[in-house]
This record gives sequence, C-alpha cells and structure tokens, in this order.
Amino acid sequence: MTQPPRIDDLDRDILNALMNDARIPYAEMAKRFNVSPATVHVRVEKMRAAEIITGTEVVVNPKLLGYDVCCFIGINLNAARDYHSALAKLNELDEVVEAYYTTGAYNIFVKLMCKSIEELQYVLIDKLQAIDEVQSTETLISLQNPINRNVQP
Amino acid sequence: MTQPPRIDDLDRDILNALMNDARIPYAEMAKRFNVSPATVHVRVEKMRAAEIITGTEVVVNPKLLGYDVCCFIGINLNAARDYHSALAKLNELDEVVEAYYTTGAYNIFVKLMCKSIEELQYVLIDKLQAIDEVQSTETLISLQNPINRNVQP
Amino acid sequence: MTQPPRIDDLDRDILNALMNDARIPYAEMAKRFNVSPATVHVRVEKMRAAEIITGTEVVVNPKLLGYDVCCFIGINLNAARDYHSALAKLNELDEVVEAYYTTGAYNIFVKLMCKSIEELQYVLIDKLQAIDEVQSTETLISLQNPINRNVQP
Amino acid sequence: MTQPPRIDDLDRDILNALMNDARIPYAEMAKRFNVSPATVHVRVEKMRAAEIITGTEVVVNPKLLGYDVCCFIGINLNAARDYHSALAKLNELDEVVEAYYTTGAYNIFVKLMCKSIEELQYVLIDKLQAIDEVQSTETLISLQNPINRNVQP
Amino acid sequence: MTQPPRIDDLDRDILNALMNDARIPYAEMAKRFNVSPATVHVRVEKMRAAEIITGTEVVVNPKLLGYDVCCFIGINLNAARDYHSALAKLNELDEVVEAYYTTGAYNIFVKLMCKSIEELQYVLIDKLQAIDEVQSTETLISLQNPINRNVQP
Amino acid sequence: MTQPPRIDDLDRDILNALMNDARIPYAEMAKRFNVSPATVHVRVEKMRAAEIITGTEVVVNPKLLGYDVCCFIGINLNAARDYHSALAKLNELDEVVEAYYTTGAYNIFVKLMCKSIEELQYVLIDKLQAIDEVQSTETLISLQNPINRNVQP
Amino acid sequence: MTQPPRIDDLDRDILNALMNDARIPYAEMAKRFNVSPATVHVRVEKMRAAEIITGTEVVVNPKLLGYDVCCFIGINLNAARDYHSALAKLNELDEVVEAYYTTGAYNIFVKLMCKSIEELQYVLIDKLQAIDEVQSTETLISLQNPINRNVQP
Amino acid sequence: MTQPPRIDDLDRDILNALMNDARIPYAEMAKRFNVSPATVHVRVEKMRAAEIITGTEVVVNPKLLGYDVCCFIGINLNAARDYHSALAKLNELDEVVEAYYTTGAYNIFVKLMCKSIEELQYVLIDKLQAIDEVQSTETLISLQNPINRNVQP
Repeated sequence: MTQPPRIDDLDRDILNALMNDARIPYAEMAKRFNVSPATVHVRVEKMRAAEIITGTEVVVNPKLLGYDVCCFIGINLNAARDYHSALAKLNELDEVVEAYYTTGAYNIFVKLMCKSIEELQYVLIDKLQAIDEVQSTETLISLQNPINRNVQP
Repeated sequence: MTQPPRIDDLDRDILNALMNDARIPYAEMAKRFNVSPATVHVRVEKMRAAEIITGTEVVVNPKLLGYDVCCFIGINLNAARDYHSALAKLNELDEVVEAYYTTGAYNIFVKLMCKSIEELQYVLIDKLQAIDEVQSTETLISLQNPINRNVQP
Repeated sequence: MTQPPRIDDLDRDILNALMNDARIPYAEMAKRFNVSPATVHVRVEKMRAAEIITGTEVVVNPKLLGYDVCCFIGINLNAARDYHSALAKLNELDEVVEAYYTTGAYNIFVKLMCKSIEELQYVLIDKLQAIDEVQSTETLISLQNPINRNVQP
Repeated sequence: MTQPPRIDDLDRDILNALMNDARIPYAEMAKRFNVSPATVHVRVEKMRAAEIITGTEVVVNPKLLGYDVCCFIGINLNAARDYHSALAKLNELDEVVEAYYTTGAYNIFVKLMCKSIEELQYVLIDKLQAIDEVQSTETLISLQNPINRNVQP
Repeated sequence: MTQPPRIDDLDRDILNALMNDARIPYAEMAKRFNVSPATVHVRVEKMRAAEIITGTEVVVNPKLLGYDVCCFIGINLNAARDYHSALAKLNELDEVVEAYYTTGAYNIFVKLMCKSIEELQYVLIDKLQAIDEVQSTETLISLQNPINRNVQP
Repeated sequence: MTQPPRIDDLDRDILNALMNDARIPYAEMAKRFNVSPATVHVRVEKMRAAEIITGTEVVVNPKLLGYDVCCFIGINLNAARDYHSALAKLNELDEVVEAYYTTGAYNIFVKLMCKSIEELQYVLIDKLQAIDEVQSTETLISLQNPINRNVQP
Repeated sequence: MTQPPRIDDLDRDILNALMNDARIPYAEMAKRFNVSPATVHVRVEKMRAAEIITGTEVVVNPKLLGYDVCCFIGINLNAARDYHSALAKLNELDEVVEAYYTTGAYNIFVKLMCKSIEELQYVLIDKLQAIDEVQSTETLISLQNPINRNVQP
Repeated sequence: MTQPPRIDDLDRDILNALMNDARIPYAEMAKRFNVSPATVHVRVEKMRAAEIITGTEVVVNPKLLGYDVCCFIGINLNAARDYHSALAKLNELDEVVEAYYTTGAYNIFVKLMCKSIEELQYVLIDKLQAIDEVQSTETLISLQNPINRNVQP
C-alpha cells in the first residue's frame, strides 16, 4: 500500500475551488489565495501529474434528464464465487451507475437510476433478475437526497 | 410535478461529451457531431438555462486525497419524527457526503468517506452516534467500487 | 363465534355474476342459471339480508386517477400498547387505504396509495412519521400488481 | 408514460358517490351536486370511456362467505429469474387474491384468503410450497383489518 | 371442521383435577365438587369416549434425567416442497421432541432436548444438518423456562 | 451444579411404560421386564423420592377443548432489565402456557394457546401488548404439529 | 462429560500470576503467596500434568505486526451438511485465526485478521468466497477492541 | 497513523518460535535459524523495545478451568450515545473477556465465557441485562471452536 502524495493547504484551496467550478481562471484563484497565477498553474499541474485530479466534467441534474427514480439494490447471488461474472453482467446495464462490494449481508450493492417506476420494474424483473447468478434482490428506493457533496480535499 | 425539458439526440451527444471532459472545445464537438460550433454553443446555453447543466467540476481521486474508507451507514432514529433535526446535524459532518431518505428499514441512509479505520471509529462513536436522535447504526464498508459512472443523458 | 350463513351453488353463481357486474339484470341471470327471475330476486334479497352482500360500487382504475404509487408499509411503534391511538391517527390519512394488525414483526401493516414518489415522500416524512407513536417504518413499493381479484364465493 | 385524463371536482363528487353505491340514480346525484341529470350522465359516460370507471360490482363480506383467514405471504424463489413462471402457477390458486412484485426482500408478495387455519395449512404446504420455484415463504396472518377503503378520487 | 364436544363447568373441574393428579380418587372429586362419585365416573367416561382425555402419564423432570439443554431450532430447507421428506427424517431423531409447521420465516420449527452442549453440537452437526434437505438452521437455546403449564380446560 | 441421580436400564423401562400410561399395574410391568412386582415398586418409589417422577396427569387433546390456535410469540421489551416484571405479568395470562428465556433476538419467547383467531387478536392487542414493558411482538402461528412426544428417559 | 480437575485458591493465584507473566520466578510467587518455592513448583507441575496449563507464549501486538483489520465473518453455506468440508478449506487460510460453530443464523462464524482493507477485499472475494461451499458471507469489521483479557482462573 | 516497525524474515522466525513456546532458549533458536545466540538476543530485545512483543503468558485450557460455555453477544443500546458508559459497566463483568465496536447492527459485540448454562442465564439476566443502557441482546453460543490460532507474524 503506497502512501498518497502529500498536499498542502494551498493545494487544498485550489482543489476546493476547482471542485466547485472547473472553469475558474487561475488569475482569480491566484488573487483569492494571495499567490501568483504561475504558482496556481504549477500546483494544478502537480495534482494532475499525481492523478489527484483526473479530469473535469459538467455537473448535470438527473431529475431534469428524466431520472425520477434513484435506488439502492442489495443483490444476493446463488453462490459467493459468482461475484466476478455477475459484476460483468451488471456492468452492461446502463441503469447501474455504481456498484460496491461491501461487508454486510449482500454480495453486491448497486445504485441504479431510471426514469420511472415502470422502467424500474422492467429493469429489475427483465434485466437485473434475469441474470443467472442472481438469487434475490432487495431494493431501497430513495425518496429524497438531501445531502450530496464532494469530500473535503 | 412539472415535466422535464425535452432534449434531442444532439443535446445528448453534447452532454455526453461534456460529462467526460468539461473543457472539450465547442469546435471539436461541432466536428464530431457534424454541426456548426454556434449550434453547439446554443445547445449548451439552452441546457444551462434549463438547469440540466448546473456547473463544472474537476474530478478527483478520493484515494489519492487519503480517503481510504468509503462506507454506507443505515441510521435508525429513536423516533421517526426526528428525521429533520437528525438530518441537520448530519449535514454538519464533513464526512457525510451523501444522505438519502429511503424506503426500507432505515430512517436515514448515508454515504460516508474518511481517511482510515481509526477515523471511521472516531466519526461513528464520537460524532455520528453522539447525535441524540440516533438510536443505532449499521455500517457497510465498501471494499471495492468496480462500477462508478454517470447516468446516460 | 357464530357460524356463517349457508349458501348453495345457485347463491354462489348469482354472487359470482354480481361480483363481475353489479348491474346485470335478474332476467339474464335467471336464464343463465336456469331458474326464474323471481328465484334470483329471492336469493339476492336473502344474501342482502344476511349481509353477505353489503352494497354495490363502481370499480375504478387507480392509475387513471393518478395513483401511480402503491406501497405496503410495516410500522413499528414505540410501544405495543400504542396500537389503538396510532390506528386512529392513521385513519385520518386518506392515503392509507388498508390497515392490518398482523402476526409478524410489525405492529401495524398498511397499504398506501399516492400519486407520485414526491407525494409518497411527503406523506411518509411529514404525515405518517410525524405521528408520535411511530418508531420506524419499512416501505415495500409495489412495482407490479399482476393478480388482483375477488375471493371465490 | 402517458398522462392520466384530467377530472374536475364534479367528476370527483360523482365518482365518490358511485364508489359508495353503484346504483345511486343520476337524478339524486344531480340534485346533490346542483347540476342537471344530463350533466351527470355525460360525466359518467366520459369516465367510462376514459376507463377510469371499469365496471360495477357487489361488495361482499368475505367473513360471511366463510373466509376467516386473510394473510400476506412473502415468497422467496430459488432464483430471481423464476418470477414469471412462479407467478403463472400462483395465478392458478384461487386462494391467491392479490400478487405484487415489490421492492424489499421478497420475490413475490401475495394476499391469500382461505376458510380456516386447516385450509391455510393445506394451501401452504400442499399447493403453494409444492411449486418448484418456491424456496421459502413467510406468512403474516391478519388478525384485524380496521381500515379498508377506496382511494379518494 | 366439526365442532368440539360441549363440556360444562363440572367437566372442567374434573378435568382440572385430573390434569394435576391423574390418580385422584373419584370419591375425593365427588366430595370436592358436591356431586356423587357415580356422576364423576360418568363424566370421566364421557370425556374419554369423546377423546378429550386420551390417556394418563407420569410427569418427569427432564433435568433430573440429565436433559440439561432445551432449545428451539428454526430450520430452512433447500426448497419448500421438501417439507414432508425432511419431517420424516426429523421424526427419526429422538432428540426432536416437538415439530411445528409455522407461519414466519422458517420451514420447520422444532423443540429439541439433549443432555449437554457437546451432545447438542453432535446432534446439530452430524445428525440434523446431515439431512440433505436442510439448508440452514437457527438455534435458540432456552436458558430458563419460568412458565410451563397446561391449557385451562 | 449437582449431578443428576443415576438410573439404570430397568428404571428407564419402567419410566417409559409410565410415561405412556400412568395407570399400568406394577404386576404387568414386572412381567414385561422379568422382575418381581416388589422390585418395580422399589424402583418407582426411588424415582419419586429423587423427584425424577413428579406426579401423574391425564393427557388431554387441546383441539377437543376448543384450542384451535397454537402459536409462539417472540417478545421484545423496552429495556432488557424489565424481564422479571414482564414475566410476572405474562404469568397472569392463562393463554400463555410456556415461557422461555432464550438466546437469540427476543427478550422472552412464549407459547400461547387460544380458541380462535378472534381470541388471539384480543389476547395479543388487549392483554399481551397492553403490558407496559412490551415494545413489540412477533407471532408464529403453528399450522401443524406433526411431532409431539416426551424425551427418552 | 468428565469433571474438570479441582483447583484451589493457591492454584488460582499462581495461574493468575503466570497468565500475566509466564517468566515470573517461582521464588517471587512463593513470597507473594506466602508459601515455599517448592510448593509453587509442585502446583505448577500439577496444573501442567492436568493440562490446565498447556504452554507458554509471547504476547504480540497485532497492530505493530501490521494487522490493521480485525473482523468477524458469519458464513452461510449452500447446505448445512457442507460444514466439515468448508471448515477444512477455511483452515488453510492463514487469515482465519478463529472459527466457531455457533447457534444462530450462520453456519460458521470466523474471526479474521489482515493487514489492510485491500487485503481483506482480496481474502474475501478471491479466497474465502471462492470456496465452493460458501453461499454468502456477512462481515462485521471491528473498529475498536476496548476489552481483551483472559478468563478468571 | 504511524507506520508499523519493519521486521524481516529472521524476526518473523523468532517471533513464530516464541509464539509457540515463550521459554525456548535463545541457543536453540540460534541453531535452528543459523545465527548466533547474540543475534537472537538483539532481535528479541528490538521487538520488545518496539512493543511488538508485549509480554509472555502461560496458555490455559478454559474447559479444564470449568469454562464450558463460550458465547458471542450482540448488544443493542437504548441510544447509540450510551456506548462509553455501557462499555465501562461491561468492563466490570469478569465473564466479558472481549468487547468490540463493530460495523453491523449491534452497538457492542462481546465474547463471554462462563462455567455453565445456569451461570450464563444468571450473567445475562441479572448482570448484563440489568445494565440500564442495554435495550436487548442476541446471544450466539459457540458449540465448537475448531480453529484457534495466532496471526502469522
């Protein structure tokens, strides 16, 4: 287990700014943090090189894309050794946006987003549960997501 | 319940591109999707105005920021009516990065990230469980997160 | 425990016909079951008097009234002795269409219908869980209701 | 997902009246709601055409038909993909009056009515559990059904 | 379902006396209940004929026979349809003194008595769990049995 | 922990005979086991003195006394320390024929017999759950009791 | 079940001393307990002969050997009869430091120590769950071990 | 989180030897591992100084000290914030030999050893459950402990 690269408070301030707005000009950060724009540039490049920063993305509102239903699904497999093959099949379902191997009673724990209760029914019955390795599923539908934010760098 | 704004295939292509790389030039998207850069610009602005696109952010690797432990915590409250006050207190804990109100047996379901098993112990015992409204918690530690991606626009 | 009133095959045939269509003419049933209309009339009146038949109702399609979400909710109370008072409060919520006292782990088991996931969230958090006696709830959302019929008379 | 047809307050009043008594004369509703009988007629026909009203039925008292035992049964299947075939077999059991595909730990959730504890034992052991796809069942017997009503139109 | 035979208060008093001491003389009961010994005799014979009384037995103290461990075991089978064959095999184990088919999550629920924790281990691992149909078991060891009595006749 | 008194094969044979029929004559047992009636007498007296045999009772058929419903109830208390006071209150309910303190998730585990589903509802809601110390209950109704016998002496 | 050998208070004092420090000189114990060193020697030899004392070991701090993760894992097998073969395979995994056959819902309950969350993931997914007999596992990670001591002799 | 001290293969061999027999002479280890006794001495002292080795102890057989019953107890508290005070009270019970704060549904997870089922009953009912903070407990009795060993250094 290698140690994570060290970052200092300036790195953290820059990261925080970029995690709120990836398009913020270096000049603005420089002014805000009382350093030269070149320093900001060096720091950002260092964090890219260290793969702390891996890219940029636009932030979208899933509800406005029609994704009304967000749920967590605990999946139990017929046999624990089917983990790898079940995962490969889950990976092919676009609706599965996150998958975890967790301690606890489930073999796999996934987050799934879809556009309606009808679509959820279809995905569950005809796609996810049609996977041979799946013995049963337990679904927690999210009715509200009041906290959703990034880690503090 | 208002209807989500309609988007067409071009909007989806542009969104997909921006969800992979927020800094991609309009010219490049224009060429890729066989339209003029002005069209790309119009579409992006339309999606910003509709709040489908709500911002940009750099993507960071939490492991390289030292966040070694990711877990889901099901929280049971002393009384169901304590939901709002418990949530307000959870919101003050930086380690709580997501919180959900879900169907199922838990009152609140949160995702928590911290830097080590020791920190998790401290957060759980001395911060999260010190909240008066919390009757008990059940923690699923994520040992692997093999799928992590955005919804398909 | 008094014995239920005895009914014979003709009663059952008539009942079956009326459970499918409360407006079916006595003449039609008479012809179908090879008896006189007067006999049908006598039998129906006998079953009304015995309170086997308690009324008539139009059958509605809840989906077309906008009721998109049907769920079962297992309710646990702070103390088992709160059953009567909790029930009285549940009775005031229009969305609670059925309530049962069942063996098994829940204190009360209800069927709830509402118009959307958003409304379910509101009913659960701000109405049902705001009831003092409620310690926790577990919600099973029905994604499909492939069988729905009357008992065989 | 098509939108449900719009209904106004008069439609709702008429529906409410018919859900209490399918045989109520149009004249009586007209007087009660301060409109002409023709208006009532038009509205009822409109709701029939829209399939909001799908029929009429007599309301029976299951207890007086000898149905003493009402229960909910959570069914776990040997494999999640057996859902469709298990459902087809459940559909052949008269005692199964409702079946649901729900989120939560069960593969299928059914409501079952039968005439006695002895009959329940027979149905469970020799009919329902004799279905090859069934791995196990969990039965909640309803001891009391204090709320049982229609949705508010 | 035939009705149970009717018994009156005198029958109940006699039954109560015999359930406490099967050897109590008729004369003593006659005196105690203010009737003739012949009446007592008639009543006892009537209850034997009706099979309300099915025999007599000495009451033993299982602890003094060395039965230190009393437990309840919930048994889950590989498939619900294996109930009859699993039961036949359980019937061959002397340690299984009671077996029930119950509502709830277990396929079979048994009461088992044995002489020590060591014997319990042997019975569970090498006899009960060696039954092919058994998928898993859950054992509740009774540490105290503060109430143990007959029904009130 | 004192050792249980030693018994030999003859004691066991005699006990077995008496556990099947408490009125079997000593002469018959003597003949069956190839010893003198005096020996049988001595052995029986020895087992009475050792309190291995604690009495005799008639065996009754609870179904013919009208006890149609047999169930097990797992009781959870508001606080584990309420065990003694809850037990005292349970002891006053005639329907509770057995009570156990068991390992496993329940605070108290009882066997309850009553005459109908209606009586069970009344006992559960208005008697057992009216006990202040009771937080919740889980009821397993026995639908069949295919094995019911004594320990092997 | 043979009776354990009898030990007296002096034996217990000596044992206590040796369980804290296996290298404590007999002379020091003799002085502390007011007996001769020869007596201490005799008692220690007696307890060795009786196999109450089975050896000596250095006490190590697992954290300083790099064992950061301690967890308990409840294992459910495909069939209860697979207990012996599953156990043999678990015995080959160095990380499994304790295994128990327990009452309760698990077939096998193990304590596992490993060096990091990454290693735990590897052991669970690729070693423990690769065992054919394992149907599923449930992992409790120990975040703190505030009490860890020997039994009182 | 400081890094654990580095140890090499010789350290591991020495540690292994001492974990099997704390009284093994340095000379024997020196011969076995092909180094000088002085080297062994230096290494042992180094590991003592680093607190990898924290002491020595005799290994006892709990069964021969009369400890027949080993169990794990999951404890749920009235409120999660009672953890510290409940722990302090558990620490005063000699029978509690290990206590863990674990992920999963329990607030505290303990290992308890006692001399008989009777003693377990007493400890559970009158000591552990008499602790005010304890809401309920779930006990897993160990019937067999087929694996019990140290970590690999």
